[in-house]
Amino acid sequence: MPVQPRTPPGVLELLPAQQLAFQRMLDTIRRGFERFGYLPIETPTFELSEVLLTKSGGDTEKQVYFVQSTGALERKTDKRPELALRFDLTVPLARYVAEHEHELSFPFRRYQIQLVYRGERPQKGRFREFYQCDIDVVGKDALAIEYDAEVPAVIHRIFTDLAFGSFTIKINNRKMLRGLLESLAVPEDRQAAVLREIDRLGRQERADVQQRLSSLLDDGSTERLLDVLLAHRGDSQAALESLRTRNASNHLFQEGLDELQRVYERTLALGVPESGLKIDPSIVRGLDYYTGTVYETFLDEHPRIGSICSGGRYDSLAEHFTKSRLPGVGISIGATRLFSQLLDLGVIAASTRTTAQVLVLAVESELTLEYARIGAELRAAGLNVEVYTSDDKLGKQLKYADRSGVPVAVLLGSRERSAGLVRIKDLRASSEIDVPRDQLAARLRALLG
Amino acid sequence: MPVQPRTPPGVLELLPAQQLAFQRMLDTIRRGFERFGYLPIETPTFELSEVLLTKSGGDTEKQVYFVQSTGALERKTDKRPELALRFDLTVPLARYVAEHEHELSFPFRRYQIQLVYRGERPQKGRFREFYQCDIDVVGKDALAIEYDAEVPAVIHRIFTDLAFGSFTIKINNRKMLRGLLESLAVPEDRQAAVLREIDRLGRQERADVQQRLSSLLDDGSTERLLDVLLAHRGDSQAALESLRTRNASNHLFQEGLDELQRVYERTLALGVPESGLKIDPSIVRGLDYYTGTVYETFLDEHPRIGSICSGGRYDSLAEHFTKSRLPGVGISIGATRLFSQLLDLGVIAASTRTTAQVLVLAVESELTLEYARIGAELRAAGLNVEVYTSDDKLGKQLKYADRSGVPVAVLLGSRERSAGLVRIKDLRASSEIDVPRDQLAARLRALLG
Repeated sequence: MPVQPRTPPGVLELLPAQQLAFQRMLDTIRRGFERFGYLPIETPTFELSEVLLTKSGGDTEKQVYFVQSTGALERKTDKRPELALRFDLTVPLARYVAEHEHELSFPFRRYQIQLVYRGERPQKGRFREFYQCDIDVVGKDALAIEYDAEVPAVIHRIFTDLAFGSFTIKINNRKMLRGLLESLAVPEDRQAAVLREIDRLGRQERADVQQRLSSLLDDGSTERLLDVLLAHRGDSQAALESLRTRNASNHLFQEGLDELQRVYERTLALGVPESGLKIDPSIVRGLDYYTGTVYETFLDEHPRIGSICSGGRYDSLAEHFTKSRLPGVGISIGATRLFSQLLDLGVIAASTRTTAQVLVLAVESELTLEYARIGAELRAAGLNVEVYTSDDKLGKQLKYADRSGVPVAVLLGSRERSAGLVRIKDLRASSEIDVPRDQLAARLRALLG
Repeated sequence: MPVQPRTPPGVLELLPAQQLAFQRMLDTIRRGFERFGYLPIETPTFELSEVLLTKSGGDTEKQVYFVQSTGALERKTDKRPELALRFDLTVPLARYVAEHEHELSFPFRRYQIQLVYRGERPQKGRFREFYQCDIDVVGKDALAIEYDAEVPAVIHRIFTDLAFGSFTIKINNRKMLRGLLESLAVPEDRQAAVLREIDRLGRQERADVQQRLSSLLDDGSTERLLDVLLAHRGDSQAALESLRTRNASNHLFQEGLDELQRVYERTLALGVPESGLKIDPSIVRGLDYYTGTVYETFLDEHPRIGSICSGGRYDSLAEHFTKSRLPGVGISIGATRLFSQLLDLGVIAASTRTTAQVLVLAVESELTLEYARIGAELRAAGLNVEVYTSDDKLGKQLKYADRSGVPVAVLLGSRERSAGLVRIKDLRASSEIDVPRDQLAARLRALLG
């Protein structure tokens, strides 16, 4: 009995038309990264477990996939396997930069578009293998705050080109948040819980968050906190002015606010319109790692998707691998999840079903070599061409053309041939025209734009 | 103590300039595939072991990497792990076509450019993770022999575009070989050994091969075999004519020869020059799987690399997964190994070190927002632009420009600014020119071609 052909749960496998659309998306993202001078790297799918799991705590490790060759499996040791699949692109970047530190120019702008792997419980929208598209700028010893403005400029460019509809990049600064908690005298051991509640302000009712905050803070502090975080939401200039008037005495708050203002202004100078960039003091973006600027990005018409692209500034990329101080700022697009959701919503349509622009039909079997020559000639003229290659009836060939989605067919029978003509059939318009044989390539190029 | 940052043995990790060159190579291959109307697919990195190892014998399984989540590891069962990394793109294609049979148009032309994984003993030129670039045309029930000519046409196109120097595609037909062994009455149980010797004719001295063949065949058969295989080597037309005169009575030999001649002639019609396509009756290409046409490709100036691109015709792609008969023909480029070897030989140079075409320098810190605006303006004009973002001394900035390899820098001080000018510094020619501010984008585009 044959084995049932199937993929493991938790992976997104696409049909060719969908794959074409996904590839177009990744190409657009890559072009956007290169437009700003970012450099590509790829790291191996598996890293040494010792290297990959240096930093991570228990939660990450639970999702890690380990890799073993048959030989290692047979040895059946109790040791952790030597190799593991990368679960993000950040740890591999840290390892890469530390390993190649003396061969790289700093600030090092890198982009990386690769799959990452996580042993998630399979459920809708959660994948065990998915593409991440990351950029980071990594400095040596220091990295100017102005780089924090480049990241949203890249993201603005890319989501403009992707044309998924209007979107908003929200920015905040973690120093400002920490300063705020300091000034409210929130004890260390409650800060994480308070930040978690703040993070929910974007998704839940104010009253619900306020209620839970009240169990962590006294009523005055809760009021003051929400007042700062939610004042002038949606109007960045007004928010900046309003924040300026608060917490004047807290150094960290003021430092964060200064950074936020500089990043905001420079991002506008980099061509991002005010309508697409919002200061939002309630953006938290995780509990550790980020130390300054943080970003989230939302599709205005699809808020339920959540942030489609997030990141921020960190103090040190690779402290587990090197004594050098490597501060950086970066952002990540989870391309597989985003593609899958937008395909479901109909925002992305897999409308192009073929890479071929022209299909040369096999009208008479005696002319089969001539069809091959026409194909070669049109390809040399820069067109993507498929030549139908079998003596199926013309009806079957036209049915194939229709199913494949190729826009134009070329037909040549012996009658056309002796008249020095060839027929172009526009399958989109269902129209036909006979053109001189030596004008074929030029006419097709005009027809296909 | 920090962990030493390092990759596992047997992987090729590239510096950014090399990665750029590799990416250019993969892009050229992809463009070649699409020029002939092939459709992209990607399959998951891991497949169910039950699916992946359906067909393979012991040798393949020895090289397979199995994948386990932490939970599965902790359960410590004696069973084979459920997931395994793909070791080629052929088994995943078979699974894909069988699984999606009713959603695909046949003949199905697919290309796939992805990593594959093999637990090789690490040694120079052998990789545990490497890119394969595959095309296959898969028919339903039948696939015309003419498709066998398209495969070398695609390969010719791609290696012409890659410009690694002159190359030769060698073709043969396994039916012809089997017919030849039949007519020499080589017993079944010796055919594999004889084919292995034939396969060595391209790499070893005739006398050595002849000696080993003598232990498998009688002297007359050995002579006759070598005579047929080596006659008119290098001259395809003469070889075809010479082959025509032999073994007229063996049906399989004649069928293979007919196919070979049709494939050869059609490949020429598809634009491959005679100089780049050679009939070579000694090409075997493995012991099973291929049943008709077989291909190997060699760089004329680097014969020691061996075949850079091989493939052939098979009777049935997916018999383990479906009862449908799915004959096909395909070829594979082992991109990682080829790139690594050509980089070592200096045939590929990682000469472009950056994606940026223009670097906007930070001449005066008061003008920092103006530099951001210039960057945005030039990007909108279609240029890849990096903006230097810190108040380092100009000397340090120019040193960075030099190291990064960016061809052109833009300088704007307050003096130029009040004169409505901006300075373009061509770092390749070490020349400078002041141009009116509003002509900057146009002048840069002209300068960068």
